[in-house]
Amino acid sequence: MTQAEIKWIKSLATKKRRDEEGVFVVEGEKMTDELRQSGFTVRRLVATHPLPYTIPQLTPEYVDEKTMQRISLLKTPTPVLAVVEKPVGLRWPAFERDELIIALDQVQDPGNAGTIIRTADWFGVRHVVCSPGTVDCYSPKVVQATMGAIFRVHIYTAVLPAFLRQAKSHTTVYGAFLHGENLYRRPLTAGGVVVIGNEGRGISPDVAAEIATRLCIPAFPGDGGGSESLNAAVSAAIVCAEFRRRAKYPVTMFNK
Amino acid sequence: MTQAEIKWIKSLATKKRRDEEGVFVVEGEKMTDELRQSGFTVRRLVATHPLPYTIPQLTPEYVDEKTMQRISLLKTPTPVLAVVEKPVGLRWPAFERDELIIALDQVQDPGNAGTIIRTADWFGVRHVVCSPGTVDCYSPKVVQATMGAIFRVHIYTAVLPAFLRQAKSHTTVYGAFLHGENLYRRPLTAGGVVVIGNEGRGISPDVAAEIATRLCIPAFPGDGGGSESLNAAVSAAIVCAEFRRRAKYPVTMFNK
Repeated sequence: MTQAEIKWIKSLATKKRRDEEGVFVVEGEKMTDELRQSGFTVRRLVATHPLPYTIPQLTPEYVDEKTMQRISLLKTPTPVLAVVEKPVGLRWPAFERDELIIALDQVQDPGNAGTIIRTADWFGVRHVVCSPGTVDCYSPKVVQATMGAIFRVHIYTAVLPAFLRQAKSHTTVYGAFLHGENLYRRPLTAGGVVVIGNEGRGISPDVAAEIATRLCIPAFPGDGGGSESLNAAVSAAIVCAEFRRRAKYPVTMFNK
Repeated sequence: MTQAEIKWIKSLATKKRRDEEGVFVVEGEKMTDELRQSGFTVRRLVATHPLPYTIPQLTPEYVDEKTMQRISLLKTPTPVLAVVEKPVGLRWPAFERDELIIALDQVQDPGNAGTIIRTADWFGVRHVVCSPGTVDCYSPKVVQATMGAIFRVHIYTAVLPAFLRQAKSHTTVYGAFLHGENLYRRPLTAGGVVVIGNEGRGISPDVAAEIATRLCIPAFPGDGGGSESLNAAVSAAIVCAEFRRRAKYPVTMFNK
């Protein structure tokens, strides 16, 4: 591998370069294995030793561990790294009746964004819409935290107030707030858009203006005194779980 | 501040030194503000500028930003750092009827452990019991991720099989598994112990042997094909939320 090639891969650590090249980097054996089954186009595959699987029409380039250390975007390099084309021409959500969509309003932490995408995948949320101020979902830390869900969940960037104005003629727009209607005490539609806000500031005012229903997750026992808030990925997960529980297991037949 | 003092604070980055000294480090204005109301004993308080609050009987030591950069255990130093005594003589859980306890079995990621403690605090879980192989909850990254909940939730270290054997004569022991009984389709007691396993390997066999009820969080729509698992902190949050919902809002009166 030439110095120029090493430099090119390293440069993909920045969003600007990923956008220019239309690619992102996937590292680790588990992640590249998932990639193989994903339909994503792999531009380059670099490995330190023979892989237990093949990617059609793509021969891995073998490098020594020292070179891998140089090209890896992770703190702890793994034995395999792939440069993958970002998906293009994703179909915009059709807002079907039970379609649940997550919108991220300036979520900053890569671990949170990645965990939300992973959780979305678990709960059959096929679309995650990100505000321009949200962390780039193709950054290495987000990609790792998705544990492969990035290959299944469709990721979009959109100006949220405009997106939500469009969405609300088809579906219900919810947001996770610290103060709002108790998630467990109000009707929920089968589908909808759920907005998750920034870790420190929550949902921004211009986005909040487009939200029909402000949901809150009640603390227990409910007299305060505990944490002031929940982590953004935790809030997203609890809200998604409740939407899906309501649709699939609406009646609790036991205890009380 | 002398070189020896700087070195002493820096040394608290390791669990060994924190254990020897019986202290841990808290950084950031918000965290030290929470600390102030916590009843924890502050051994030292170091700041780069006058603080908007006081801690009784403790005058901050002022240092320049360069010194703060040297003593901070964080990537991005904050204007204030406190060295705090670890709590001693915590009362062991009494296993009251609606007491919910979380046990961590070799949870490795500091962000996950911290987020679980933060979530515990939100849901009125007063005790988190950690296996000896779990990340040290007084490590800087865990402390930060708790967002202050570390001052309210009681943290213990215990060999889990022995702890669970004792617990199960008083309460029900549950675990979060990938395969188990559907969380939403079985009775839950008001309280209990919920075991959360390692990020990659799940709950270890010797711990699983002491678990009465294996719970799983159902994927949606449930035909697989999506993520293989949920993040450990997300699983803990969804299970805790459901225990508390069942106790407080057992009947869903709306849609379906």
